[in-house]
Amino acid sequence: MEPTDQVTDQQAAIGILTVSDRAFRGEYEDRGWPAIRQYLDAVLDSDWRAVPRVVPDEPSEVQLALEQMVDRDLCCLVITTGGTGPAVRDVTPEATEHVCQKMMPGFGELMRQVSLQKVPTAILSRQTAGIRDRCLVVNLPGQPRAIQECLDAVFPAIPYCIDLIGGPYLTTDERRIVAFRPKKARKG
Amino acid sequence: MEPTDQVTDQQAAIGILTVSDRAFRGEYEDRGWPAIRQYLDAVLDSDWRAVPRVVPDEPSEVQLALEQMVDRDLCCLVITTGGTGPAVRDVTPEATEHVCQKMMPGFGELMRQVSLQKVPTAILSRQTAGIRDRCLVVNLPGQPRAIQECLDAVFPAIPYCIDLIGGPYLTTDERRIVAFRPKKARKG
Amino acid sequence: MEPTDQVTDQQAAIGILTVSDRAFRGEYEDRGWPAIRQYLDAVLDSDWRAVPRVVPDEPSEVQLALEQMVDRDLCCLVITTGGTGPAVRDVTPEATEHVCQKMMPGFGELMRQVSLQKVPTAILSRQTAGIRDRCLVVNLPGQPRAIQECLDAVFPAIPYCIDLIGGPYLTTDERRIVAFRPKKARKG
Repeated sequence: MEPTDQVTDQQAAIGILTVSDRAFRGEYEDRGWPAIRQYLDAVLDSDWRAVPRVVPDEPSEVQLALEQMVDRDLCCLVITTGGTGPAVRDVTPEATEHVCQKMMPGFGELMRQVSLQKVPTAILSRQTAGIRDRCLVVNLPGQPRAIQECLDAVFPAIPYCIDLIGGPYLTTDERRIVAFRPKKARKG
Repeated sequence: MEPTDQVTDQQAAIGILTVSDRAFRGEYEDRGWPAIRQYLDAVLDSDWRAVPRVVPDEPSEVQLALEQMVDRDLCCLVITTGGTGPAVRDVTPEATEHVCQKMMPGFGELMRQVSLQKVPTAILSRQTAGIRDRCLVVNLPGQPRAIQECLDAVFPAIPYCIDLIGGPYLTTDERRIVAFRPKKARKG
Repeated sequence: MEPTDQVTDQQAAIGILTVSDRAFRGEYEDRGWPAIRQYLDAVLDSDWRAVPRVVPDEPSEVQLALEQMVDRDLCCLVITTGGTGPAVRDVTPEATEHVCQKMMPGFGELMRQVSLQKVPTAILSRQTAGIRDRCLVVNLPGQPRAIQECLDAVFPAIPYCIDLIGGPYLTTDERRIVAFRPKKARKG
């Protein structure tokens, strides 16, 4: 776990995947993707570029998009928005689990816990997170309101997670989010 | 997510499934089922009828009962009691997972968290929840004491969950439980 | 659930499994195993013996070690340390799930929650627990600092869990940890 300068100099690719039948058909304005983009712009200090995409709530489409964002676009982080509820078309968590080699249950637990302080229906969100190769995939709910509160909760752990899976060294604006790294892992 | 009057006028069928070898053999009085029935009577305002059943702690029996309550009896909600512990005969969570298309991890997380404030052995309960077609299945522990505290924690989210999966529009006595629905989803 | 004197008189075998490539190759001093041993010495009042082992972060090796500790060494409890993170070589939770018949999600939830009060990266720990036959397997992180806080959180529930799966009757030094047992289950 010693990040090299070479890795630091890479521009981090971050996927933002909107999963929504209606956004895909252009029936409503996707407010999830701009909310995530804005969040990352405000929080990330290191160089990054967004890899955006919109897919319908179709398991094969969500899986394919995730695979391409990781395998072809070499994203170190993919944030999904939408498709985490109990309805029959909500399939994002299953698609995430399908493409990941490892699941990270702590992300969903913490995001639900934080959202529960706002609404009792937070337990209906099935959002999860997982690792595919050198990429962390994190599901967010579709509501823009929930996006910030969820990211505020888990983002402090994301840069170190990406270190641990061999991705680029992300840094944050510490006035906004303090990325936690154990002392021995800090870049000297 | 626009419930129609037609759906509202249906009488909601709610399954109450006791999973217990001893209750099945009549060796002890099942106190789980009356506690759940009483709870629903006190909390639900809209019309409903109970579909009760007792099965032994046998995977195939629990699965079959769940399938019949959903597929034949058209329950929109099935609440199980018993069989959630670590013992070899405790198989309710696995049977639930087996018959459900989607799992709802937030229910178990919240119920364990609430029970933990009472007893440290709350972590031994493996209770979960999931969706089979248009029905939400929720596991409760067997102890009558735990039934109320668990239902108090998750019930505010249950009517909206049933809306989202296409079930009847449940209403509650708001002095007892306030069913949370996002504004846009409220019946106007 | 009536523990007999016969069971009480058994010496409980408790497995301590270090999962670490570097500890296995002797490249660093394993501090997880002594921390767990010391904890159990301080907390357990009833007779027990340690079954220690160190394996590399290799799924087949972790699985085999767990199987042997349960099936051959008849451990009633196996505590693992290490291999719970997101890195490619971290495979302890998957190996645990592979050998267990039942998973106990409440252990991981509570341990992450407790660790979260110290470090936001606690959500990166994928630690879980499960049952194989008459043995409870609990994953701990690798950091010695986290070992005590995690065990303090879950240990009060462990003796009763072992009762429920047919293991020996463990007792604790109540100045240190109060093992919770429901009244009807207490040894009279």
